[in-house]
Amino acid sequence: MRRIDRPEAHVLGVSHTRFGEQWEKSFRDLMTEAGLAALQDAGVQGDEIDAVFVGTMSTGKLVGQEHIAPLLLDGAGLADRHLPATRIEAAGASGGLAFRQAVQLIRSGSADVVVVGGVEKMTDVSDADAQAIGSSGIDQEWEHFVGATEAALHALVAKLHMAEHGTTREQLAAIAVQNHAHGARNPLAQFRKEIELEAVVKAPKVAEPLTVLDCAPLSDGAACAVLCSGDVVASYRQDAVRVTGSGQASDHLALHSRRSMTSSRATQEASRRAYLEAGVSVADVQVAEVSDPYTVSQLLAIEDLGLVRRGEGGRATMEGRTTFGTGAVVVNPSGGLKARGNPAGATGIAQVAEVVWQLRGEANGRQVKDARIGITHNTGGTGATAVVHVLESGL
Amino acid sequence: MRRIDRPEAHVLGVSHTRFGEQWEKSFRDLMTEAGLAALQDAGVQGDEIDAVFVGTMSTGKLVGQEHIAPLLLDGAGLADRHLPATRIEAAGASGGLAFRQAVQLIRSGSADVVVVGGVEKMTDVSDADAQAIGSSGIDQEWEHFVGATEAALHALVAKLHMAEHGTTREQLAAIAVQNHAHGARNPLAQFRKEIELEAVVKAPKVAEPLTVLDCAPLSDGAACAVLCSGDVVASYRQDAVRVTGSGQASDHLALHSRRSMTSSRATQEASRRAYLEAGVSVADVQVAEVSDPYTVSQLLAIEDLGLVRRGEGGRATMEGRTTFGTGAVVVNPSGGLKARGNPAGATGIAQVAEVVWQLRGEANGRQVKDARIGITHNTGGTGATAVVHVLESGL
Repeated sequence: MRRIDRPEAHVLGVSHTRFGEQWEKSFRDLMTEAGLAALQDAGVQGDEIDAVFVGTMSTGKLVGQEHIAPLLLDGAGLADRHLPATRIEAAGASGGLAFRQAVQLIRSGSADVVVVGGVEKMTDVSDADAQAIGSSGIDQEWEHFVGATEAALHALVAKLHMAEHGTTREQLAAIAVQNHAHGARNPLAQFRKEIELEAVVKAPKVAEPLTVLDCAPLSDGAACAVLCSGDVVASYRQDAVRVTGSGQASDHLALHSRRSMTSSRATQEASRRAYLEAGVSVADVQVAEVSDPYTVSQLLAIEDLGLVRRGEGGRATMEGRTTFGTGAVVVNPSGGLKARGNPAGATGIAQVAEVVWQLRGEANGRQVKDARIGITHNTGGTGATAVVHVLESGL
Repeated sequence: MRRIDRPEAHVLGVSHTRFGEQWEKSFRDLMTEAGLAALQDAGVQGDEIDAVFVGTMSTGKLVGQEHIAPLLLDGAGLADRHLPATRIEAAGASGGLAFRQAVQLIRSGSADVVVVGGVEKMTDVSDADAQAIGSSGIDQEWEHFVGATEAALHALVAKLHMAEHGTTREQLAAIAVQNHAHGARNPLAQFRKEIELEAVVKAPKVAEPLTVLDCAPLSDGAACAVLCSGDVVASYRQDAVRVTGSGQASDHLALHSRRSMTSSRATQEASRRAYLEAGVSVADVQVAEVSDPYTVSQLLAIEDLGLVRRGEGGRATMEGRTTFGTGAVVVNPSGGLKARGNPAGATGIAQVAEVVWQLRGEANGRQVKDARIGITHNTGGTGATAVVHVLESGL
């Protein structure tokens, strides 16, 4: 491949709505709210935008609306500019992949200002439809049709991790406890309530060994980021955050086809590519927003990203090595999918928003000290898609 | 924006399955069939691929499967390479937009060989579910919820075009007649049968004035294209087709919000951008694959693309100005969505396949004479997304 002197991508502005049950707002309302707030944060006018991407997973099934991308422009009053507007879908990784498309478009030199949104409206549908959404991110023919659910597959992974590495039920629970402790400090989080280890273990079972408190909720919400090229960043915010690494990888959609069930090659590859591009090592990272649709997902994530050693995810969490004060890195200061909430397509962009706030020193009440380098890690299904970004303070 | 000396994108190989009712094949089977055939046509080995895109509209609703991109790799036996694999959705424009992402990635210098697929499995579901798919590409809240269907909106456009330009019922029908005449020569088409003008006019009404023979069918099918950069093309096929222009544009999702209902600003803008990039004028084009989910769509398409003058689409078709022998340009030599069939996400890639075959001189029985420059025009819903590519013979 040719080495081209490419423009660098910067994040100028971010926003996300409150995540949670928002029955009074349509997905269109949520998307517009997040979009306008991000433009304001970026100091960008509508007529400066060159292209738009949006990540969403389930609007086709849950709201009967595909073809979401033009709506984002509509909501922002920009439809008459006839901009390119593109929707990306990769189950829970939809937002992160949409963000990556924006980064790539800027790096290609074809756009100076790109807006990327994520949205999901999941809570005002039937339980059956909501369940079906989870199973649409795993392999429908080879997994769900024969009875597996997303939760059941993650439970298998948890049991296998316990057998292979001695991970305990309490260590898994500690991940939920930590994310709730973080989420309690986040005004936009769905659950702003600390929980006890015992509560997680004794909560109603979803799929042995996972209880309801091991699982991230379904949520309504939208998030938005405004990116620009290094060629124009000086005319906007002086504290724009640099996107120095972007890595994406995939694996077999069906869990049983993968080389390992207790580690994610997709996450390993995506992060390797992102670190390489950024020229950083994992030891340089102070803050990480990682994928935790289930507690065991976060266990694998921190191991596969290299934040802790293989097999030590549970112990490291118990020992406080991934939280404020005691950890070299703070994992999911936002509360993660578990406590901030998980409107699927919005999650990947909300992760970017959190890291941007951390790197700008604006994460009141949950600020990671001296945060200069942060990563986002967004996955779909049981991890068949993983996307990792390295963000660095522009100051 | 910075002007970068970018690699050019070339189409090395293409394929599509037969379009139609294929109850014996799953969407996974179809995708794999098209993918392997395209790789063979390209002369590309699996381990030479850098990234994958896939366009699909309705698998989430119709097959319960989102997160389609990793499946494409799985089917091709490439999952263990952990490549970036990304799904694009834009209703009927899903395939064309996926193709554009591949073009942009190659131009960015980040990939040398990119595979782009499109797939849809639409015929083995209930009529109600099939109907719902069409309405998921128009504005659910502002159009479908209050009773409009995709067909009804196109019927409104047809009536308005008749009122504004004197277009006749017979002129609309002539579009279907022409596409069926072309499709009869295409062995992969869903309908290989010529039809009479009177048959179209007298067929059962769908939405006045449109009859069932004005409407493209729902179809099963998959298509695939293999692209490479100009840096490596010499080591593959000598007759690779160059992608010299790519334009994408959007408009209000709801028809009533647009400045005009009888012309598409999205198509006008997308084609203007594509022609500009390619440095060609519409007079240079010998073959055009355009969007015809309804006969009236093709009427607007040929006008908005500049292939005929505004308001003359019907007359030009009646006079044979868009067909073999008598036309300066042949529109939809494949039979178009109407006769080749319309598996939504696959259509945009099948258009590319047809133009590539035409430019390589391989369109047996329906070869456009001396075809050197062709365009593809792919739209979603009532045209809120439009994407146009200019392809040129590499010989």
